[in-house]
Parts: sequence; structure tokens; C-alpha cells
Amino acid sequence: MENFVFHNPVKVIFGKGQIKAVGREIPKGSRVLFAYGGGSIKKNGVHAQVVEALASAGLEFREFAGIEPNPRFETLMKAVELARAEKLDYVLAVGGGSVVDGCKLVAAAIDFAGDPWDIVCRKAAPTNAMPLGVVLTLPATGSEMNLFSVISRDETGEKLGWGHPSVMPRFSVLDPETTYSLPARQVGNGVVDAFVHVLEQYLTYPAEAPLQDRLAESVLSTLVEIGAKAMATPPDYQARANLMWCATMALNGLIGQGVPQDWATHMIGHELTALTGIDHARTLAAVWPGVVAVKRPEKRAKLLQYAARVWGLSDGDEDARIDAAVAKTRDFFESVGVPAGLGGYNLGADIPEAIARRLSERGGLPLGERGDIDADQVRRILQAA
Amino acid sequence: MENFVFHNPVKVIFGKGQIKAVGREIPKGSRVLFAYGGGSIKKNGVHAQVVEALASAGLEFREFAGIEPNPRFETLMKAVELARAEKLDYVLAVGGGSVVDGCKLVAAAIDFAGDPWDIVCRKAAPTNAMPLGVVLTLPATGSEMNLFSVISRDETGEKLGWGHPSVMPRFSVLDPETTYSLPARQVGNGVVDAFVHVLEQYLTYPAEAPLQDRLAESVLSTLVEIGAKAMATPPDYQARANLMWCATMALNGLIGQGVPQDWATHMIGHELTALTGIDHARTLAAVWPGVVAVKRPEKRAKLLQYAARVWGLSDGDEDARIDAAVAKTRDFFESVGVPAGLGGYNLGADIPEAIARRLSERGGLPLGERGDIDADQVRRILQAA
Repeated sequence: MENFVFHNPVKVIFGKGQIKAVGREIPKGSRVLFAYGGGSIKKNGVHAQVVEALASAGLEFREFAGIEPNPRFETLMKAVELARAEKLDYVLAVGGGSVVDGCKLVAAAIDFAGDPWDIVCRKAAPTNAMPLGVVLTLPATGSEMNLFSVISRDETGEKLGWGHPSVMPRFSVLDPETTYSLPARQVGNGVVDAFVHVLEQYLTYPAEAPLQDRLAESVLSTLVEIGAKAMATPPDYQARANLMWCATMALNGLIGQGVPQDWATHMIGHELTALTGIDHARTLAAVWPGVVAVKRPEKRAKLLQYAARVWGLSDGDEDARIDAAVAKTRDFFESVGVPAGLGGYNLGADIPEAIARRLSERGGLPLGERGDIDADQVRRILQAA
Repeated sequence: MENFVFHNPVKVIFGKGQIKAVGREIPKGSRVLFAYGGGSIKKNGVHAQVVEALASAGLEFREFAGIEPNPRFETLMKAVELARAEKLDYVLAVGGGSVVDGCKLVAAAIDFAGDPWDIVCRKAAPTNAMPLGVVLTLPATGSEMNLFSVISRDETGEKLGWGHPSVMPRFSVLDPETTYSLPARQVGNGVVDAFVHVLEQYLTYPAEAPLQDRLAESVLSTLVEIGAKAMATPPDYQARANLMWCATMALNGLIGQGVPQDWATHMIGHELTALTGIDHARTLAAVWPGVVAVKRPEKRAKLLQYAARVWGLSDGDEDARIDAAVAKTRDFFESVGVPAGLGGYNLGADIPEAIARRLSERGGLPLGERGDIDADQVRRILQAA
């Protein structure tokens, strides 16, 4: 186990009926920017619950709608303008990971003197971020309990990740009932997103950290157990609740403390979304098989452990076990409606080269837990996927 | 899964060489009460490292030595006197769970106008607790990452638990090398303490919380895997590091969110320590077999799950599996030098009655995850143990 610092002060308020806590958690006298996405929260009653919570607490608020999936810098700067004009000093993000990611930048930018894009490029750190609260409606990214944010920019076709402790949510309400109206596609994406978040922190090489390994395997095994139930109609409260808690635990930092981390699938996946618009989770399912195919020798010990502990494959030829574990993972992704491998996405033959070049030009290489994935390996990963 | 609120803002600074972080974490200008136990930290170099960290940061500090195992209210009030006289405003606890528990009360009492014993009796809440930092030297209680504290009082022979969010440590340094000089007895106690902390939150009844179950099993299985290695001489860094992280994770609140909890073993064990002075962890190993013997029907489903997942016992007669899991647990306790069951402690025949009466008189009954352990069951548990 390597040295680490773990500090996650997010207050998680979990369960049905908890949205009313918003009124208690935001300090009296705050002026709230209530930000959300495409308006689905108006159809499923979440908007009304939030308004009721804010109004009963006597909080002043202004609404900002229209933060899109893969939140766009251009849109977020309009929210910043509104907040500045109306002197808003508390950001309440209501939605999925994209709304939360976007609101992290909004919170950081409101009182930031320079160009907020510098924060996204990690050229500058936020100096006086406004406090952020979250009502989560889509279990997937873990953004509700971490400091990360991924922002896209039309002008340059970029999709970049950044993070800062000052934009960790003060509180996050996780009410599984808010997910009942989600389309099946988004639930399946959430299952895959959470699963791959864990794989990025687990499927590397052994690091004498048996507890972290088992915590990661706990999230993976639980996702396998509940994945199909979480897709069911009518929605099953317990399956949705467990999916929601798994997705948060997958990326709140805990399972990755003191161990090597990979993230190659994500870095390549972000480029794929930027180039083609494919949903984030789908890019992960598309790219991951290529990463394990190319990095199989380096990941061998952990692949065998994964096969044994998550899929119960501990007998017989080692390579056959790894093959079977990869096949079971692909089947699992497909079972929640997400195609595994690039084959399912009808992409042009120029994609591997385009992604390798983009990553290379931005200085985003090498990738992986050993820092040994160069442009050539990125090409091979995408060809293998 | 039941609704829950999880909020653990403790900053964990983990690994060798991390004590120097103390100087960075305590704000400039603080006047520090540097409190510790019997002086073992002077022999193993931890005292010198802390003094160096405080001095290089230019922090004023006063030392208070002599916080004992099962920290005594009377001793702690002397530390409060010193802090008040010297206008100290930051408490730094350096030691094991007893020092940390004691310092939580000291931090709460320094600026408290009433009788600090009311805080321990939960008749009053702290109003302006001083900030608390921790350098942990004994992995066991989890106090370094939670809000709980257990305090003993000579005058009344009581041992009582209390807790408050304002006494959660601001930071905790967990350096596994600080444990190298511990006597084997204390390492073994720590293994058992952490293990039983998990059992209290896990061995209840199924609650549709598969992730929490697996997280708990992760800590249990890891303790089983590393227990013997953690006892080895010369000390094994990785085994000590994993023990330290397991002990913290066992009681930082995470594994118990949204699930029923028991704590009968602890409540009965506290009385046993108050009456006889037996080490806390040893009382847990002494009492636990009695609790599972008496509550076996109510705990049956989880006992079978425990047998299967922690001990690999999933075939054959169900009762035989439970018997074997209990026997393996007892063997595990004994393997780290802690006698399992009351038989190993040479106690008087009046103990069951005395403990049942004390718990009953204080209104401490009923106990257990179903609230169905009355005075008669406490007697039976102690007889069965």
C-alpha cells in the first residue's frame, strides 16, 4: 500500500423523501442558483420538490435550465452570468453527473477574476468557489461525492477533466425514487459507468492492498448482482437504491487510496465522445475490451484475481479464465443494453488515428497505471476494441 | 436499505513518514495541547517527531501526559484545567483509541460552561469544541475517524459512550511504523477490536443492502488474511498498514449506513471492563460467543452468509456451518492471543447478575439490533459465553 491522503467531507443524505433536506442544508440568507438540465425534473416531480424545499426555508433562488449531457463551457458561462447579475452565492445542482460537473465549474467561476477556461485546463485554481449542493437524479458518475468535473467546449471540440477540493459538494441528496423516470438507456449507462470506474482503480497490478481490492470487488459484485433488477419496470426501490450507492462508492475516492490507477479507458473514451458524441458510458464499454486485450500481460495477476473473485472463475487454464472473465464482463455490459467493444458503434476507420493524434498533441500521453500507453498503443487498443 | 446520512469529514493522512504533516494541518497561531498516554511515545520516537513537527511550524504547545487505557474522567479534567490556564485552543491527541477518546472530551470541555460529565451522560451537547488532531499509534478503535468516545469514571465505576460531530478529528495521521513498538498483546487486541466492530454492524439480519454486506465482509476477510502477519516480529510494514486501515474502516461509519446494528457485545463488554478492568478488546472476545449462542435464531440468515463468505463454509448442514464459523472465529481470536469466551478470564459467578443489574438500572436495556435483549437475556449471554 502506498501513502495516501483521503479527505471526503461531502454529507450524503440518502433515501426516499430526502429532498426536503435541501432547505435545512443551505444556510439561511443564501441566494441560490438552482441549476438543472433539459427539464425532465419538471415531469417527474423533482423540480416541484426542490422548489417547495427552497421556498419553505425562505431561500431566494433563480433557476437556470439547459445544462446538457457533456456540459458545454458556453452554456455554463451563461449560468455564471446569471449568478453574477443576481448576486447568487450558493449553487444547487439538480440532475445527473453532467449537471453536477457543470455546476462545479459554475461554482468555481462566479467569483473568479480570470478566464474560467483556465480552471478547466488546470492552468489556474479556483480562488473563492461558491458552496455547491446536489440533488442527484442519475446514479453513474460519482460526481456527487467527489471533486472531479469534465467539461466540453464546442469551439475547440475538447472534453477535459479537472478537479479541486473547493468544489466538492457540501451535501448531496441521493433519493433513489428520483431515478424512476429515467429511460432504460440511462440506467444501463449508469451501471456501466460505475463498473468501469471501479475497474480503472482495480484492474492494474497487485499493490499489497487487500482491503482496497476487496472494497472494489464489493462494488463490482454488487453491480453484477443488481444490474438486471435495476433495469426492471416498474422500478424496484431496493435495486435503484443499491445502484445509487454503488455508483457513489465507485468514485468517491475510497477504493482507490494507496493503489495504482489506470484511467486509460476514460481518457480514450473522452476523446471518442468529443469526436462522435457517443454517450460517456458507452465509450467506456467500447474502449475497455481493447485496453484489456493490449495490456493483458501487465494486468495478468489482477485479471486472474478479478476472474476468481467477481466471476467465480478459479479453475482450469489461466488464459481461459481471463478470456471467460472478459467475455462475462462484455455480456454484463450488453445485459444492461450497452454494446461492448467498438464494433457496435459503426465508426470510421480513421478514429484510432484521430484519437491517438489528439491525445498526443495535447500532451495527454502516456496513459495507464504504468504510464506506458503511447500513441501507438492507443491505436492498437482502438483496433483491438 | 434504510435511509441514512453519512458525513465523515476527517482528513486521513496515511503512511510512513507522515507525522510531519501535523505542522501543516494545525493552523498557524494555534496554541496546542499535545496530549498522550503513558509515555511509550517517548521511547519509540513518536514524541520527538511530533515535537519536531510542531516546533518547525512555529506552533506554541504544552504537553499533558498520563491519559490511561479506558481514559478516566478525573485525569481528563486535569488536561482541561491545563488548557484553560494556558489558553490552549487546539487539541492534538497522540496515542491509541483511549487517548483519542479522552481528547474528544477534553476538546469538548475546554470551553464548556456546565459540568463536562453531562456531555458523557448525553445530558448536554458540546457548544464550542476546540479542534482536534490525531496521531494514531495503535490500530483498534476507529476513534481516529469517527465522533465516538468512551469515558470511565472512578467515582461511580461507570464506563459510558457518547459522541458528537464537533469532536470528529480535523485530521488523523496514520503512520503504520508508529505501531512497531507495540506489545503483541496490544496488536492482538486491535485485530479483535476491529473485527468485532464489523460484526456489530454486519451480523444482524438481511436488510437488502448487499454493498454494505460486502464492504463489511471485505474488512473481516482482510483481518483474517493479515492477522497473523500483523503479529510477526520484526514488524511487517504492509501487514501493519493493512491492519491500520482495516481498523479505521471498521468504525468510520461507512459499513453501517442504512443497515441494522447490534452493539450488544460492546455494551456488555463495557460493563465487564468497568467491573473487572479487563482490556476492552478482550471483553469483546469474551462476550461475543455468548451473544451468538443466545441470538442464533434471530441472526441465522446472516450467520450462514458470514460462514459462506468469510470462512468459505457453504456446503452441508446449516447448523454445522454456523457452528464451524463460530469455532473459526474463536480460533482466529485465539490465534492473535486473545482468549475467546468468558472461560479464559477467571471471573466470579456473580458477574452475569451484576452486569444485568447495572445495565438495567442505568436504563441501558434492551440491547441488540431488534431491541429484544433484556436483563434475562444478558444473564443467559454471559452464562453461555
